Amino acid sequence: MFAPHRTNFFESQTKMVEQITLYSAKVCPWAHRTELALKESGLPYKRYEIDLANKPEWYAPKVNPASKVPALAALPRLRKLAESYVLLEFIADLSASTKPLLPSDPIARAKARFFVETVISKWGSVWYGIQNRGDDPSGILPAIEVLQNLLPAEGYAVGDWSIADAAVTPFIARAFVSLKNDAGAYAEGSGKKLYETLQSDPKYARLRQYYADVSGRDSFKETFFEDYLAERYIERAGTLRAEKKAKA
Amino acid sequence: MFAPHRTNFFESQTKMVEQITLYSAKVCPWAHRTELALKESGLPYKRYEIDLANKPEWYAPKVNPASKVPALAALPRLRKLAESYVLLEFIADLSASTKPLLPSDPIARAKARFFVETVISKWGSVWYGIQNRGDDPSGILPAIEVLQNLLPAEGYAVGDWSIADAAVTPFIARAFVSLKNDAGAYAEGSGKKLYETLQSDPKYARLRQYYADVSGRDSFKETFFEDYLAERYIERAGTLRAEKKAKA
Repeated sequence: MFAPHRTNFFESQTKMVEQITLYSAKVCPWAHRTELALKESGLPYKRYEIDLANKPEWYAPKVNPASKVPALAALPRLRKLAESYVLLEFIADLSASTKPLLPSDPIARAKARFFVETVISKWGSVWYGIQNRGDDPSGILPAIEVLQNLLPAEGYAVGDWSIADAAVTPFIARAFVSLKNDAGAYAEGSGKKLYETLQSDPKYARLRQYYADVSGRDSFKETFFEDYLAERYIERAGTLRAEKKAKA
Repeated sequence: MFAPHRTNFFESQTKMVEQITLYSAKVCPWAHRTELALKESGLPYKRYEIDLANKPEWYAPKVNPASKVPALAALPRLRKLAESYVLLEFIADLSASTKPLLPSDPIARAKARFFVETVISKWGSVWYGIQNRGDDPSGILPAIEVLQNLLPAEGYAVGDWSIADAAVTPFIARAFVSLKNDAGAYAEGSGKKLYETLQSDPKYARLRQYYADVSGRDSFKETFFEDYLAERYIERAGTLRAEKKAKA
C-alpha cells in the first residue's frame, strides 16, 4: 500500500504505543465513533465507562480538562488526547500499515473527510432541535438526502469501511433508536411515523442498505447498546414532554 | 517545483493531479488557510478571486453548491472539493513526500489536529460576537490563553510549520487588523486598547512571537492583504456602529 519506508515508519510508531485506554460512555455518539475505529483497527485497548451524569472527580483534572468523552491515553508517550475526530485520524494513522481505516489515495481521503464534514454539519444542525426541543422529526430528511447523495451506489462512504463511516454511523443509529421508540421531545407519534417511512419508502433504500451494512459489522455489534439507549431515551422523552406540557 | 524522483505512493498521487485551481477571497480566513498551505507546499496552483458580495452565477452550480470559498479543483480526477480543513489535509497528503506539512509521527499529527480543533472552537465561539455584535473585545483573551498554553516554548504549533498553523493564523491576523484599527462593532477605543495590551504585556509575549514567526514567512506575506482588509473592516464597522446607534 505504502512505500516501504512509510510502512516501517507507522509500524515503529505503533510499537511506541504500548497501551491505549479509551474513556467512553455508551450513550455518547462522539465516543461511539472512536470505539468503532478501535474495534476495526484491531489495536488492543482498555475501555473505561464514564457516567456522564455523575463523572468521577478525577476525570477532568487527570484525563480531559474539557470533562467530555471520548478521551484517549496512549502510553507511554501520549498522556491524553481528546476530540473524537482527532482520535479517529489518530487511530487511522496508528493502524495505517496493519489495517487501513482510510484509503491511501489523497483524493479518496479528501472525499472521506468531506463526507464527515458535510453530513455531520447538516445532521447536527437539526437533530438536537428534534430530539431535545421537539422540532418536527422530518427536519432530518434533508440531512438524509445529503448522506444518500454522497454515498456511492453500494458499499461504504469511500468504498471500504473507513473512519468516515465511524464518524457518521453513531448519529444515524441514535436517530433510529429515538424515532423507532418515539422517544424524543417531538409530538407523540411523529417519530414512529417517520421511522416507518424510512424503513419502507423506496426513496430511503440507500440509507437502509448503508445502515444494514455498517450495523452488521462486528465492530458495531460490540459497541452499540440499543436497549440501553432506548431505555434512556424513553425516560428522557417523558421528562421533556412533561416539561413542554407544563409550559403550555 | 517537484522533487525529481517520484518513487513513493504519495508522489505517484501527486502526478495524478495535473492542475490545481483554488477559488478564494482575500477577505476570508477559511480561504486564507488553504492559500497558506498551497504556498508552503510548493505545488503550483491557479488562484481565482471570488467576490463574495457579488458571486459569479456559475460559482454555485459549477464549483461549490454551498456557494462558499474556499473550493479547490484538482484536475483531471477531482472536479471540486470544499471545506477548508478538508482541503488542508488534502494539500498535506499531496505534498507529504515533497514538502511535509504535517509531522509523520501519529502522536504529533494528533497534537496538530487537536491544536486546530481546540483553538478554533474557542476562538470561533467569541470572535464573531466581538466583531459583528459588539461584544467586549477582551472576550478573546481566554482563546488567546488556550492558544499560548498549547504552543510549545518556541517554534510552531507542533515544531516545524504545519497545516495546524495554516488553520489558525488567518484568524489571529484578522483579529489584529480589527483591533489595531478599532474596526469592529465593539465600543470605540476598546479594540485599540486591547491591541496595545496584546503588543506590550509580557503575558502575551508567546502570542507575539508566534505571530511574528508565522507572519514573517513568505507564504504569509504573499497571501495576506492587510491594507485591503483594514479598509473593508473600517467601512463595515462604521455601518455596524451606525446601526447600533440607530437602535439605541
